[in-house]
Amino acid sequence: MKKLYVIGIGPGGLEHMTIKAKKTIEESDIVVGYTKYLKMVEPLLEGKETYATGMRGEEDRCKKAIELAQDKVVSVISTGDSGIYGMAGLILQLDNNANVEIIPGVTASSSAASVLGAPLMHDNCNISLSDLMTPYEAIKKRVKLAAEGDFVISLYNPRSKGRPQYLKECLDIVREYRDGNTPIGVVRNALRDDQSVHISTLGNFDEEIVDMMSIVVIGNSNTYIENGRIITPRGYKID
Amino acid sequence: MKKLYVIGIGPGGLEHMTIKAKKTIEESDIVVGYTKYLKMVEPLLEGKETYATGMRGEEDRCKKAIELAQDKVVSVISTGDSGIYGMAGLILQLDNNANVEIIPGVTASSSAASVLGAPLMHDNCNISLSDLMTPYEAIKKRVKLAAEGDFVISLYNPRSKGRPQYLKECLDIVREYRDGNTPIGVVRNALRDDQSVHISTLGNFDEEIVDMMSIVVIGNSNTYIENGRIITPRGYKID
Ligand SMILES: C[S@@+](CC[C@H](N)C(=O)[O-])C[C@H]1O[C@@H](n2cnc3c(N)ncnc32)[C@H](O)[C@@H]1O
Ligand SMILES: C[S@@+](CC[C@H](N)C(=O)[O-])C[C@H]1O[C@@H](n2cnc3c(N)ncnc32)[C@H](O)[C@@H]1O
Repeated sequence: MKKLYVIGIGPGGLEHMTIKAKKTIEESDIVVGYTKYLKMVEPLLEGKETYATGMRGEEDRCKKAIELAQDKVVSVISTGDSGIYGMAGLILQLDNNANVEIIPGVTASSSAASVLGAPLMHDNCNISLSDLMTPYEAIKKRVKLAAEGDFVISLYNPRSKGRPQYLKECLDIVREYRDGNTPIGVVRNALRDDQSVHISTLGNFDEEIVDMMSIVVIGNSNTYIENGRIITPRGYKID
Repeated sequence: MKKLYVIGIGPGGLEHMTIKAKKTIEESDIVVGYTKYLKMVEPLLEGKETYATGMRGEEDRCKKAIELAQDKVVSVISTGDSGIYGMAGLILQLDNNANVEIIPGVTASSSAASVLGAPLMHDNCNISLSDLMTPYEAIKKRVKLAAEGDFVISLYNPRSKGRPQYLKECLDIVREYRDGNTPIGVVRNALRDDQSVHISTLGNFDEEIVDMMSIVVIGNSNTYIENGRIITPRGYKID
């Protein structure tokens, strides 16, 4: 293999990408990614070869990238951080070559948090509600333990058309441990042009507004809402 | 207030900072931060006013930043993401003003993961072992529940001189749920010039190598070590 970079481009748009990610894309011969993500970095792609595939083509995309990287400098791009529900794992599962290099990015929970205020200031976890690769029972168990542990919880892939009820069911699990005033924030397309933000509480939450372009952040027992922001104090003692 | 930015500069060094973070620092009148972090962005500070304090001056630093921002454009910097154990929360706790803007960055767990391979590919959590603001009992409870939930676990502030035994005690809790072959990675100064990496297992781990410049990443029950990398497969079924 010549060189294969696996790059997290951040939330989308060029601003919140790292300098290293930008430079690496610019210096690559070929850029591989989901069509929509390639669009996000379009200004960097001028005159470059690209290889795009639809959403379900993940494994194909990785195999193709590995093949192309045999004699070219190739970048595979993920949104957010490529190491969190992104391409880094699959690439290394398929070909753990020393010439694969992972370049981290700002993950969706951090992007969303910056828009919501400061919800992640204390111990927090990321859980994906996608059951494509994980049994739903395991997902629910994690949600339960995270709720019991009073973690701030970020839900990735929170509500797909095929399993719209999972979000409500998981929030019901959280409701067994946290009261109705617990803040909950939804950011759709965080830090993209069409960003939208919705701040509510566990007691008043409307799951219908959530889709797969959104991330859901649930506060811990100390989190509060003030001036349209969600804030988790740093510790358990507040002065 | 005129304008106060709270910026995550990423792991350290200029490369892994976002384009927006860099631009914002460059456009600020005054930059406020811990002395060591100001040093990391020194090339951006030429001709700029700065306000530096030592580690324990967190609250002072935030108050000073808020005061300066009354009539200047001020940036407060944190390493990693300012919203994860960074300055965003404290600033908003002290003054939740509409002119405060949070700019996210690459957090330490993502940086470390990129160096280790792809350990965070599945549900994961961040836990701080600092008991300055959180009772140790609450920390241990979270470690236990995270271990029980088979989360990949990133331990921030893993081992201070004042409480060196916490790390071993917390790993012993994890050992009740995961076997001795579970991969564990330590990255010290991730993506900085003096980075060092240590990959081991729960059974063979030597806590002595860990300090406060390090982050500790513990795999889930599916995580494996291969070619000096830690990889967590994306799902529970591997083909
Ligand atoms: C397959 S995961 C990819 C995560 C990505 N690698 C990361 O680190 O952010 C896709 C999910 O990430 C979340 N997501 C990614 N980018 C987002 C954004 N800009 N705004 C809101 N949610 C986002 C959504 O929950 C979406 O369903
Ligand atoms: C007060 S927390 C700040 C976290 C930071 N805001 C972030 O998002 O990464 C300090 C802890 O973060 C971790 N850390 C921060 N930068 C790191 C780096 N470059 N390499 C390893 N660990 C780091 C260490 O565990 C350290 O004790």
